[in-house]
Amino acid sequence: MHPAIAYIQERRDAFVEELKTFCRIPSVSTKSEHKGDMQKAAEWVADSMRVTGLEHVQIVPTAGHPVVYGDWLHAPGKPTALIYGHYDVQPAEPLDLWITGPFDPTVRDGELYARGAVDDKGQVFMHLKALEAHLKTQGSLPVNVKLLIEGEEEIGSPNLDPFIAKHQDILKADVVVISDTAMIAKGAPGITHGLRGLIYFQIDVEGTKSDLHSGSFGGAVINPAFALAQILSQLKDKNGRITIPGFYDDVRRLPAEERRALARLPFTEKKFQKTIGAPALFGEKGFTTLERLWTRPTLEINGLYSGFIGEGAKTVLPGRAMAKVSMRLAPNQDPAKIARLFTQHVKRICPKTVRLKVTEISGRGMPWLAPTDHPAMQAMAQAIQKGFGKKPVFTRTGGTIPVVATFTRLLKVPSLLMGIGLPDENAHAPNEKLDLDNLHHGMLSAAHLWNELAETKLK
Amino acid sequence: MHPAIAYIQERRDAFVEELKTFCRIPSVSTKSEHKGDMQKAAEWVADSMRVTGLEHVQIVPTAGHPVVYGDWLHAPGKPTALIYGHYDVQPAEPLDLWITGPFDPTVRDGELYARGAVDDKGQVFMHLKALEAHLKTQGSLPVNVKLLIEGEEEIGSPNLDPFIAKHQDILKADVVVISDTAMIAKGAPGITHGLRGLIYFQIDVEGTKSDLHSGSFGGAVINPAFALAQILSQLKDKNGRITIPGFYDDVRRLPAEERRALARLPFTEKKFQKTIGAPALFGEKGFTTLERLWTRPTLEINGLYSGFIGEGAKTVLPGRAMAKVSMRLAPNQDPAKIARLFTQHVKRICPKTVRLKVTEISGRGMPWLAPTDHPAMQAMAQAIQKGFGKKPVFTRTGGTIPVVATFTRLLKVPSLLMGIGLPDENAHAPNEKLDLDNLHHGMLSAAHLWNELAETKLK
Repeated sequence: MHPAIAYIQERRDAFVEELKTFCRIPSVSTKSEHKGDMQKAAEWVADSMRVTGLEHVQIVPTAGHPVVYGDWLHAPGKPTALIYGHYDVQPAEPLDLWITGPFDPTVRDGELYARGAVDDKGQVFMHLKALEAHLKTQGSLPVNVKLLIEGEEEIGSPNLDPFIAKHQDILKADVVVISDTAMIAKGAPGITHGLRGLIYFQIDVEGTKSDLHSGSFGGAVINPAFALAQILSQLKDKNGRITIPGFYDDVRRLPAEERRALARLPFTEKKFQKTIGAPALFGEKGFTTLERLWTRPTLEINGLYSGFIGEGAKTVLPGRAMAKVSMRLAPNQDPAKIARLFTQHVKRICPKTVRLKVTEISGRGMPWLAPTDHPAMQAMAQAIQKGFGKKPVFTRTGGTIPVVATFTRLLKVPSLLMGIGLPDENAHAPNEKLDLDNLHHGMLSAAHLWNELAETKLK
Repeated sequence: MHPAIAYIQERRDAFVEELKTFCRIPSVSTKSEHKGDMQKAAEWVADSMRVTGLEHVQIVPTAGHPVVYGDWLHAPGKPTALIYGHYDVQPAEPLDLWITGPFDPTVRDGELYARGAVDDKGQVFMHLKALEAHLKTQGSLPVNVKLLIEGEEEIGSPNLDPFIAKHQDILKADVVVISDTAMIAKGAPGITHGLRGLIYFQIDVEGTKSDLHSGSFGGAVINPAFALAQILSQLKDKNGRITIPGFYDDVRRLPAEERRALARLPFTEKKFQKTIGAPALFGEKGFTTLERLWTRPTLEINGLYSGFIGEGAKTVLPGRAMAKVSMRLAPNQDPAKIARLFTQHVKRICPKTVRLKVTEISGRGMPWLAPTDHPAMQAMAQAIQKGFGKKPVFTRTGGTIPVVATFTRLLKVPSLLMGIGLPDENAHAPNEKLDLDNLHHGMLSAAHLWNELAETKLK
């Protein structure tokens, strides 16, 4: 057994206690009252990097919460990996739904319950301990590593792109490793190799300068909420297919072989339906749920507002109505092109009796699909097989991780997404938890990864 | 000149000062911090009734704000009129849009600016002074009168129906006089003889138990906001015609003669459009704006909510979506029948992949259309002609005054709607005002009304 692996095996329980100290810090990035806690969490990460044996450890201020950086660069001729994670967490509310306090980490039935346990403190910790295992037993790492742990992921990483752009030379690497995703099911460790892209719009429809009395004016002027409903109902047909002309033109067709691979994954639609509590599943005809989620684009209404939404009745004829509409894009779709098609379509179908404003309100996310036969991908597959004792599956996610696109764009290197979360671990919800078996096997996998990557030609 | 008329002519300016003292009381019925002001306003009305010479004046407690009652019943053999009005006002917010304070009554260019000036303190005051003119100059009234001035009109009169039901004997009358409406234009005094009815619903659509992440789940489950948009867009066609089967079956057809009368009224669509600030007028094909507003039913979305409506972007797939939908009903439509047709239609068109709840959330209002040749109506027309020096026009309103239906149902007597407001006097909005010419001529008309009614056979 490799000494680093033995090191991790021996400390399994001690590591859980150590992770608890990280999870006790309420580093909620969205709330200004936690500014001090954010600093504390950054210091926890920096201290932990130093104990691990990393060098050049520093807490770098940004316009928002600081970034923590550290590296170890004494493996000349070997690949350099940039590890990305985040130390901030989602707000814990509603507090009354937590069985034990969100910042009082507690183990029950092999799971660590705490805000941030899986998203993303546990996964950052996993990497820190895997590096420690190498450095404490060997005095060295098989590869060069750089760590970039930010504090603003849960608020959309507003200062990360500028930070990466500014420090491109320092962050230069051959591969990026990101552990902030989930595997498809317990016992099925995996590699995420695809993400959907994202564009996000706000549609504002104005009928009249101000709200009117629905009795005095109703019937003689357009109702902007009705105009909005008409527009929205013409974005998809009754079968859930998006009706924007040209929308599907560039969507990558799923090869039969990939389809079969998806069908073999440990995923049941029945269980999925039960988890979300829907009366029925619904989506584009001719595709399975996994295909819909991972390989097909979607258009969703994220928000809707007009007039009076309090309790009871108010006879107002609203002056304005608003919808937030976003699209998740499948591989090969171009966010700029789809944004143009969407805007044109909405303008075309909008009744002429209202004023329309279509505004793009969030950064675009590129869809991402990495080849599974890339040498770095295969190295990670090897590492996971050794760490979990199981051949990993290749999965995708329907979500968007903008930092992947940033790394692709700015550093021009492949990203490896090695997530050890589970779909039911309540990231962003009460009773967030982390499976401690997965933490342990993830740590082993991470330790193996550096050995595997050392043997891989990446340049 | 009748002494009562002379009395009013002589006191034109003094009356304005007196009305200001009423308007200075911030009797906002919806806000609990104004409970003391509500009592003060009720006392102002009661004191004013006593000064006028009314008898049995009392402030009657209800489950909410009190009702003020007074009467004068010494004209045996003559008709009895019940005068209804309200002493409560709408909230004044947004305060920064008022040129002078809402409770600091100020005269500019022949208009009294104050919250409640036209709705409804000025119109209650008009009746008090017309009665005073008779009682102070003659020691008597030509008819019997009862006054019922409530304090909860602006919050939907929740305690008025029980009050009227309980005191039917005391309130017994031959005719009800209500001054809480507007004339169609300055210089065109009128009588409102028609109202639309009202039914009001909330539609709740549930897709999943809770909100989901739009990336992880979008495309594989129905979006309830989209299902709601589909439902709403199927309630009216693109021409604004309501598509609920059977909806128009009972709508009273407008006789050609009434159509011609409407067309002669001093109303221009251009000015109407400018007032509401709409890019275009819009409504049921084949009808003028006035016909749409007064004689045709309408279906309006009053409120719309789903998901995230704050600033910026949140990638939520909402679990639920909600709409408030109301219908204004034309004469001969039965609220109970239309409520049934609406509910059936919504259930029929709702996608089966969501849970639907349709709830009626407000009392039903019957449409109302009174014959213009009724003797009481003709008496009021005479009074207005004398008071304003102009033949009144018969108008309707697209709104609903539930108390009219209550009086019709419980007291079984005709209602006379004699409003002296103007369409642009900002009732319910900042800079509410009252035209002082209209107040004066309205007072004269009210004084004449009692003489005219004394000569009218109503029993």
